[in-house]
Amino acid sequence: MSNLHPQLLQRLHAAVGAAGLVLDDAAKAPYESDWLRKWNGRSSIVVRPADTAQTAAVMGICHDTHTPVVTQGGNTGMSGGATPDASGAQVVLSTQRLNRIRSVDPLNNTLTCEAGVLLAHIQAAAQEVDRFFPLSLGSEGSCTIGGNLATNAGGIAVLRYGNARELALGLEVVLPDGRVWHGLRALRKDNTGYDLRDLFIGSEGTLGVITAAVLKLSPRPVARATAWVGARDIAALVQLLARLRADCGERLVAFEMLSAPSLALILEQVSEVRAPLAGEHAFHALIELADTQGEGLAALLERSLEAALENACVQDVALSVSGAQTQALWKIREGISQAQMRAGKAVKHDIALPISALAAFVQQADAALQAAQPGVRIINFGHLGDGNLHYNVLLPRDTPPEALAAATARFNRIVHDLVAEAQGSISAEHGVGQLRRDELRHYKSEVEFDLMMRVKQSLDPNQIMNPGKLI
Amino acid sequence: MSNLHPQLLQRLHAAVGAAGLVLDDAAKAPYESDWLRKWNGRSSIVVRPADTAQTAAVMGICHDTHTPVVTQGGNTGMSGGATPDASGAQVVLSTQRLNRIRSVDPLNNTLTCEAGVLLAHIQAAAQEVDRFFPLSLGSEGSCTIGGNLATNAGGIAVLRYGNARELALGLEVVLPDGRVWHGLRALRKDNTGYDLRDLFIGSEGTLGVITAAVLKLSPRPVARATAWVGARDIAALVQLLARLRADCGERLVAFEMLSAPSLALILEQVSEVRAPLAGEHAFHALIELADTQGEGLAALLERSLEAALENACVQDVALSVSGAQTQALWKIREGISQAQMRAGKAVKHDIALPISALAAFVQQADAALQAAQPGVRIINFGHLGDGNLHYNVLLPRDTPPEALAAATARFNRIVHDLVAEAQGSISAEHGVGQLRRDELRHYKSEVEFDLMMRVKQSLDPNQIMNPGKLI
Repeated sequence: MSNLHPQLLQRLHAAVGAAGLVLDDAAKAPYESDWLRKWNGRSSIVVRPADTAQTAAVMGICHDTHTPVVTQGGNTGMSGGATPDASGAQVVLSTQRLNRIRSVDPLNNTLTCEAGVLLAHIQAAAQEVDRFFPLSLGSEGSCTIGGNLATNAGGIAVLRYGNARELALGLEVVLPDGRVWHGLRALRKDNTGYDLRDLFIGSEGTLGVITAAVLKLSPRPVARATAWVGARDIAALVQLLARLRADCGERLVAFEMLSAPSLALILEQVSEVRAPLAGEHAFHALIELADTQGEGLAALLERSLEAALENACVQDVALSVSGAQTQALWKIREGISQAQMRAGKAVKHDIALPISALAAFVQQADAALQAAQPGVRIINFGHLGDGNLHYNVLLPRDTPPEALAAATARFNRIVHDLVAEAQGSISAEHGVGQLRRDELRHYKSEVEFDLMMRVKQSLDPNQIMNPGKLI
Repeated sequence: MSNLHPQLLQRLHAAVGAAGLVLDDAAKAPYESDWLRKWNGRSSIVVRPADTAQTAAVMGICHDTHTPVVTQGGNTGMSGGATPDASGAQVVLSTQRLNRIRSVDPLNNTLTCEAGVLLAHIQAAAQEVDRFFPLSLGSEGSCTIGGNLATNAGGIAVLRYGNARELALGLEVVLPDGRVWHGLRALRKDNTGYDLRDLFIGSEGTLGVITAAVLKLSPRPVARATAWVGARDIAALVQLLARLRADCGERLVAFEMLSAPSLALILEQVSEVRAPLAGEHAFHALIELADTQGEGLAALLERSLEAALENACVQDVALSVSGAQTQALWKIREGISQAQMRAGKAVKHDIALPISALAAFVQQADAALQAAQPGVRIINFGHLGDGNLHYNVLLPRDTPPEALAAATARFNRIVHDLVAEAQGSISAEHGVGQLRRDELRHYKSEVEFDLMMRVKQSLDPNQIMNPGKLI
């Protein structure tokens, strides 16, 4: 601990007590690496404040002592944004004990909770009052709402409900100097100054510590209708998306795409899944409608897809006729992460494009990657309804680390150059963290980077909030 | 022009040409007062750049010469945010010539246009490609999208579609020093750094000049169902809102409230409107559903309202059975502004509260105002579905200016104190401008004001952007 301020530990102990400190090496280990063990660091002190006041005290001490702070929620991030560096000088501030749902207001359709509450617990609390909290991710059983907001998480219902950003009405934030911004407003309309809320959302712990949020609840859908379709190309799926939006409006909740190689990989690697369609199709989509009224919903989906079949927009359709079938279809889509992990090492891209640019992009990127490395295995899937592709390249399991790093740099440049050309985003929903920090610097315009630096400098002048991440 | 920089006019002339300058007193007059002639100022130079490059040149010159700039769109604001001060030293930058729709992308559901395009033109351009741009305000024929975004405008469809903020995906902004931030992204997901977009939205021209935006289009509703209900109190309407949301989900587009005195005032002052219900009701609501599917929509509304009648949640219901009836119902609601203007002088409040707090607030505020001035005429109406009330006090037409000012200060304090107590907003959708600047300072926490000042200082260090407004 030689590189820490001599009074730091003593002062933190006074602020949070023994129960709020993790100092033992074995106990600290889970906070020092991410869940994939891809990012590994070291922290001399992990501090777990019990409430907002303790969090403010911790930040006040870190401010005084110029101690860098890495805020960590469920530690389920994809980009290393919550892992300390190797120096040991960064304190990990865990929000795990900020785990209270403070209030639920069904008439106002809001839920107010602390940053460390698990996403699944929020979903359940909403359901208890016959409401719906639509944010939904693979890690919902272990990720926290604080992390979801800090990274502006996306997931499988963004098409209808928006990203985490669109689901938060207010925030409580402990600032880098230990003051508390009480912005926990439960209002649909509020034009009283600059939008500080959205500045903290998506800032990945580099501007302050989100300690609580007011979340927007939606009417609870009571019915859903699900289908699987096969199509000859992305352009056909984009046409289908337009038709479904026109026909079904806000009922359309999910439009998830899998390329044929992605589906084949899942069928090969994941047990108890079966091909949903008989023939061969270059692209597949899982489509779901949801509504507060069940009547006519399945018929509406059937009618819309039949018309798409007739004009050859899609090649084949399987409509789910039971809850078990629906579960089976989702199991295929959800199997892609496991399938990739089992089959090899994935060079991952988390990109977004205008939906109208997706088809041309995929053609170009496929060709460019094949030219760079003939036979390259492209695993292309994602949230087509949001223009968000996880356009990955799968390498053999035994690829050595240096070769993986070299391939990553090479494939990133090819894919991200094409994304930039198409006015897309190189980080759609997984955040920047450590993973994409250099890429961000490479692609961000000088003007935008300067604006971000000015904001950072104005809110965190001592640069103690999550150094080495995002900016 | 003695208080202006000696080379200012010459340099502006070189940048925008004679066509881009308004110098004649009579020609300048419309830019120096707001549409209600409530706010009156003076500007030695009105500059009307023709495009983004000219706007950047203008701002570069104003930066060099430390010239304050007031950006103005359609000049339809409610809070004096676009009117120069009396000094003559502030240049008015009009966006009127930035009036091109740059592109419409139906597959991506986006429209890209410049700041000076009229809201009604955007609505029409969306409709041309069978899409819907949902922002809708009384002034839509004369307000510009730049002004809508700068003030984060609300209106009558926020319940379903959100404020202007939720309808913008990307912005192009000329910064206070003349650089251009090219943030015109047409993406649903983009997590590549701080949310600069939402910092400029709602900042009322104090951080930069919005020159263009990418707007989000929605599926076009083809059917609507409309009803008028009478209820005994606000609490009953709030219960009805919850029921309608549960039954109808996102179909519910509008839930507009009028108190009995508001309705009486409209019936008295506006020609060709009739009482929609026979009996007496303390509160009224205009309710509208919209959907991409017409089948069953009217029946759904009828069923939901019948159930509300049965459990005495509402006292009476009138369902519209024709387009003409629907128009007539909306004409009542839209008549409130004219009715107030004709009947007297309104001390206006534009407040938002948690919906669950509305009933108690109205009781308290009514009582407090009656106690302060027995017989006071309260005109309470607004967007109940958003928790947004225009809770006004109507004074006689012949109230002298000094008495109006004194009454405004007194009523503001009573109403806004209660709003603050209920964690509400004193400026829900009309912006702060000059009108609520002192009130904002009065009610904003020190921490939040400091954060806002830091942001302002970091982006506009010379304080040339719209001084005297908002912050």
